[in-house]
This record gives sequence, structure tokens and C-alpha cells, in this order.
Amino acid sequence: MSAEVICVGTELLLGDILNSNAQYLAQQLAGLGIPHYYQSVVGDNPGRLKQVIEIASRRSQILIFTGGLGPTPDDLTTEAIADFFGTPLQERPEIVADIARKHSLRGRPMADSNRKQALLPVGAAVLPNSFGTAPGIIWQPRPNLTILTFPGVPSEMKRMWQETAVPYLQSQGWGKEPIYSRMLRFWGISEALLAEKVAAFLDLTNPTVAPYAGQGEVKLRIAAKAESAAVAETLIAPVEKQLREIAGIDYYGADNDSLASVVGELLQAAGETLAVAESCTGGGLGQMLTAIPGSSNYFWGGIISYHNQAKISLLGVNPADLEEFGAVSDVVAQQMAVGVKNRLNTTWGLSITGIAGPGGGTEVKPVGLVYIGLAGPNLVTNFKIQLHPQQDRNAIRQISAGHALDQLRRQITTRNLSHR
Amino acid sequence: MSAEVICVGTELLLGDILNSNAQYLAQQLAGLGIPHYYQSVVGDNPGRLKQVIEIASRRSQILIFTGGLGPTPDDLTTEAIADFFGTPLQERPEIVADIARKHSLRGRPMADSNRKQALLPVGAAVLPNSFGTAPGIIWQPRPNLTILTFPGVPSEMKRMWQETAVPYLQSQGWGKEPIYSRMLRFWGISEALLAEKVAAFLDLTNPTVAPYAGQGEVKLRIAAKAESAAVAETLIAPVEKQLREIAGIDYYGADNDSLASVVGELLQAAGETLAVAESCTGGGLGQMLTAIPGSSNYFWGGIISYHNQAKISLLGVNPADLEEFGAVSDVVAQQMAVGVKNRLNTTWGLSITGIAGPGGGTEVKPVGLVYIGLAGPNLVTNFKIQLHPQQDRNAIRQISAGHALDQLRRQITTRNLSHR
Repeated sequence: MSAEVICVGTELLLGDILNSNAQYLAQQLAGLGIPHYYQSVVGDNPGRLKQVIEIASRRSQILIFTGGLGPTPDDLTTEAIADFFGTPLQERPEIVADIARKHSLRGRPMADSNRKQALLPVGAAVLPNSFGTAPGIIWQPRPNLTILTFPGVPSEMKRMWQETAVPYLQSQGWGKEPIYSRMLRFWGISEALLAEKVAAFLDLTNPTVAPYAGQGEVKLRIAAKAESAAVAETLIAPVEKQLREIAGIDYYGADNDSLASVVGELLQAAGETLAVAESCTGGGLGQMLTAIPGSSNYFWGGIISYHNQAKISLLGVNPADLEEFGAVSDVVAQQMAVGVKNRLNTTWGLSITGIAGPGGGTEVKPVGLVYIGLAGPNLVTNFKIQLHPQQDRNAIRQISAGHALDQLRRQITTRNLSHR
Repeated sequence: MSAEVICVGTELLLGDILNSNAQYLAQQLAGLGIPHYYQSVVGDNPGRLKQVIEIASRRSQILIFTGGLGPTPDDLTTEAIADFFGTPLQERPEIVADIARKHSLRGRPMADSNRKQALLPVGAAVLPNSFGTAPGIIWQPRPNLTILTFPGVPSEMKRMWQETAVPYLQSQGWGKEPIYSRMLRFWGISEALLAEKVAAFLDLTNPTVAPYAGQGEVKLRIAAKAESAAVAETLIAPVEKQLREIAGIDYYGADNDSLASVVGELLQAAGETLAVAESCTGGGLGQMLTAIPGSSNYFWGGIISYHNQAKISLLGVNPADLEEFGAVSDVVAQQMAVGVKNRLNTTWGLSITGIAGPGGGTEVKPVGLVYIGLAGPNLVTNFKIQLHPQQDRNAIRQISAGHALDQLRRQITTRNLSHR
């Protein structure tokens, strides 16, 4: 028993829209424990659509369609499905009435084309749409094959999925064994090296462990099949414990944790505060920190010293040092961190100065060169990072901000350990 | 001649990541004029992957794979492709050398598992990866079938696509009638209202005009089929001109323009400078401005005054006003804008203070209430915005920053018009 997601729409093939429906349905199927091995995208073309139905109906038992239920001539999902299974369409008076009612509610005339949306295959049940005009179907055109259709508008699709499809799928007894997962997050180690360190775990079958590379970070996903969250936890917890021990300080958090949230928790636990001084990131570090609700408890603000004059006047960077060492230097990074710590009167000052590119690089200071300054209780230090010069400006800025947070995380974590 | 996109990765089937690669490739193929009728997603499973290759190789002539090129055991795209076509893999010494070089640049040891990434099918050309360790292939395993593979990391995939795949596909003479498109961008008008204003254009056939809603913005996509860019331009230009006239000042730019780039051009043209003072956006406005290369010509920096004390000490906001009107008020927004303009000695000061949620809202000042302050030559003003309180924190922050830039844009544009 496995499900297949089929998204219909030429706009997907032209790249005009992002296929967020496929991700939503994938998450939902995993949560319900219904296996899902294939997704297909096909345009509003009856021949190709029928070809996709033919392939999918041979290898999957639940076909979930999104898109192509609208009133316009290029909406032909329902027609193609009915045609493929040799079943005639039939107008459903209760749908015509529902569409007419929705139009009158909005004070709009019902278009003739809307009647098309009331044509469903003989034998198919209506999958109701609470606020759009396009209903879907739940239909078993033959034994061991179930078809569900949804409109492409994400809000309507999700509502119909939750209100009708989930209870229906559960009532059929499908999805007994959901997948429960935990995503462990690491910073400061490559995917390959982490995978090598935890190689023995990658062959496990329940739970499985799989590595992923993100922007600057690496993740390990532990996924368990189990009849309940409690049972899954007994499978996941011991593996998680061992993986975290192997990774040591490179492990920083799990699931929805981010470097910013983890740093926030460390600061809050210690009753400490933070201010930032940003050059090449231009506010990105502050934005990451303040993405966390409640960050005002420990993040007091910062200074975006994009222009050198701002480094001098707002942060107290020494003009002679700026001249001698340049804005992208260990000396200036440290002075920025000290300056913002003093001006905002916080426990920690964290700074970033670097060359985000694409221009501005030199032989000695190439694009991707970033200095992070950190000033704290009895501590002023800096870290030099060389990111790949070919990476784009945005990636360099984001990864730099991540490294800055990571350095503060390591500093506080190490101190906490040595205090024990 | 048509292309098919095949995205490989169990994380896609579990909904752990959004398939943005498929959208990017779809846009690119449309731009090149290479027809694209199917997309498939399949997990890291050799049997199912080979089944997908079998189907795709029967109906499409260019197969574009993303994902599964990493160093870990579950990365098996290259292996499965070679296996399907009965071709052995061969280690490429130049790739091993390249991977070793990249590791040493970053001061990290190369893992043994990275050698796996140097195994390519005999006869396949290398599709180089400038900064990641995973190269792709360009391979014709049989006449009239071309295979291109890319890693799943979007930044690497895009770079490889642009640097190598596009020139290759063009050199093969594929893509005779490309779709040329222009995306017009609007701020300060709803999708429904804009669509109503331009209703007559939505029925055009070449070019077509289609509306899209973005985050805070609305877009109209004009798309023309033509044998050359010059011919497309003769189709698009008159429609664009009329649409821009209808929209007036709500139109702000096209294609890759952003509010930040447009504001930057206006400032640079006027020889003026900008500083920002941010509360709820925490640096997001500065980040948007500095995402534009060359922004140091007009953006001098800013102050992230997250804590009220920072509003007083760094921006000179009056403590009595803070007490009386609250941090989220027209009075404080204006004082922040004036304060940052004076401290950074710029032409303009732009500020944001608001309630991004999810907590912190009250009956009088609900989540989504945002004040924008603007100080400029002979001008101090503010704008009140009420975003939907149910929107998430991130959206409220991003849209607020957009509104701030849009207000500055309108101010400068209107002044320029009245000066004429």
C-alpha cells in the first residue's frame, strides 16, 4: 500500500509557481505512516495526463491529484481520470447548487463555465471544498486503487485534506505505522566527515539515520517507524544520544532549533545579554537573532557599521588601525565587538566584517574572507574564516552570520563545561 | 526534443525540503525554449530510481537529475544511471585531486567517502562543480538521449547549470522557440484589484499576461513566444508600457529588481545617502539594502535599537515620549528616523517599530501594527501599517521592511516628478 502524488498544471512546468503542495502532502503522508515513493508533475494535457495515470496506477494504490479542477477549458484533471477508466461524467445537482450559493454570497454572477466543476465520474464520492468552488473526488475506479483529487490552491487543498481526506484515509485503516523523526543539527564539520564518524549508524533500519547538507550546516535525520510516538522515542533516543556523543560540540541542536535559538537559550540561562556590530552582513545577524520570539530578553540591539565612518563614530574603531589593517581585519573585528559591547552595555559583543563579493576582493583579501570579533567577560578574541570566493553574496553573508553565532555558542558551552 | 526533470531524494518524499530545484530548472528550460512535459521525484532507492529512468528515457530526450551525488552511501544517482545503461564506473583522478584541493583550502581533512564522488560512468563528461565536492555528468548513453546530473544543493546546482549546462544545451541547437518573459512588480495594491484594473490584458494570447501574488507584492508576468529576443521585445514592450501606465506609482520595477535595488538606484542617481533604525525587524531592513552589491555607495549603516534603552542612548529618542506613547508609536518612529539620520549624517533616515508577534499584541496595539518613520531633507513623517495579526512573525517583519523601502521610493519618485 503506497501513495503517489500527481501535481497537474502547466504553470508548474513553466516554473511560474513553486510546488509547495507536493511538500505538504509528503509531510502529511509521512505523518500518517502511508508510504510514498513517487511524485509526478504533468501539464494540462489530456494525453500526457492519462499516460501518468497509467504508470501511477500500476505502481501505487492511492493516487493523490492536485490542480486542474478549475472552471476554465485547460482544467481537465477530472475528465482525464474518468476517461482513462472509461467512466462517464455526471452532473451533480448538489454541487451546482453549492457553487451558485458561493457566488451569490460574494455578490457575483455564476459563470456557465462553473457548471463544469459539477461533473464528476459516475460512482465517485464528492470531496467537499468549504470555500472554493472546485470540489474534489474520492473514487475507487477498481479494486485496490483509490483516487483523491484536490484543487491546486494550497489553502483549499490543505483544508480539504484535513477535513475529509485524513479521516477517510484513517477510516480505511491505512497508515498504521507513521514515521517519527528527529533532525539533529551540526555546525563546523563537513557532511562527509560527519558521515564517516557515524558510518555504523547509516546502516540501521529502524530507526534509519541519513545525513543532509544544508547552508553551512549538516544534519542527521533519525527516522523511526512505530505505532506510537512513545515507542518511536524508545527507538530514537538511544541513537540520538550516541550520535550526539560522537559529534561532541559540533552538535548544536535538533528539529526546529537554529543557531540563533540555541545561543538565545544559552544567554537566557546565564542571564547574559548580547549586542552585534555588523559590516558585510548589514543587519543579517541581528535579523537571525530577532527571528526568535522573546529575543528581547537577551538581545539588546546593534550597530550596522557599513560605512567606515560609522565604524569610527558609532563603534569607536581606531581610524589609524582602519587605515593600517583595513576594515576586514582581525584588529578591526575585535574593536567592533568591544565597541558595541560597551555602547550597548551588554555581556557580549559579536562582530562581523568581511568581503561578501562579488566585487571588492584582492589577492591578499579575497571574496569570502570574514573576520568575526567576540568580546565578553574577560575575553576579546577573533576568528578568521575563508569561505569559497565563488559562493554568492547571499550565501557568504548567511554562512558568516552562522559562524559568528556558532563561535559564541562554543565559547559559552565550553565555559559552562569547564565550570562544572 | 523535450526535457524531463528528475529529482532524487528521500527527503523530498518525506516533505523535509521544498523542491525549489524543480522550479528553477522549469524556469530555465522555459527560458531556453526547451519543452518540458514531466517532472518526477523519487527516493534514494536504486530499484525505483532505475524504474523512473526507464520511463523517462522512453518519453524524453534530455534527462536532468538533481540530488544523490553526495559522498554518503545513500547517494546513488550516478551508480543507478550507470547500472541502468550497463556501463561501469571509473575513478577520475582529476576529480579526486579537485576534491582534495577543496578540502585543503578549507583546512579540513578529506574523507575516504569523498572518493566515491569521483566515480563516473565510462564515456561521461564531467560537469564541473566550482565550489562543492560533487561534480555532475553530461552523458549520451545512447543516441538521442542526453543525461545531465547536478547535486541537490541549490546554490551548486544553479551555478553548474549556468556555467556549463546552458552553454552546452545551446551548443546542441536545442530550444528553437523560447518563451521570453518579463515580470512586472507592484507594491501597495492587491492582486484582485490589479487584476481587475488590467482585466482586458489577461485574455491576450501572445504575449500572455498573468497575475501572481508574492509576499507583500503583486506581479504580472508578460510572456511571449518568439524566435528571438528582439521579436519578443516588440510583443512585450507595448503591453508593458500600457500596464505600467495603468498601475502608476504602484509599479516599482521588473524582473530582478527589488524594492531595495530600486531605492538604491534612486538614491545613487540623486547622490543621496541612507541610514536605518530598526526595532521589530532587528536588522532585516539593513540586510535587504546590503543584499545589493555596491550598496555601500548610498547605504551608510544603521542602528538596531531592539531594547528601549538603545532607542534612548543610541538614537536619542525622548524617554518621556517612549513612556507616554510606547515604543510602537508614530512619535517614536519619527524620533528614531531623525536620530539615525543625524548620527550617521545621511540624507535620509528610515525607521521601523512594530509588533511582529506572536506575543506582545494588545487590544489597542495588535500584532501586525507597524510604524515607519522617515526623515529627509525638509521632511519628517511617519506611516502606520496594520498587517494581518494572524500572519507569522517572519512575514510581518519582511513585509514591514518592504513597506519602509516603498515609502522612501514613493517619496523620492514623487519629488522627482514634481521637480520636472
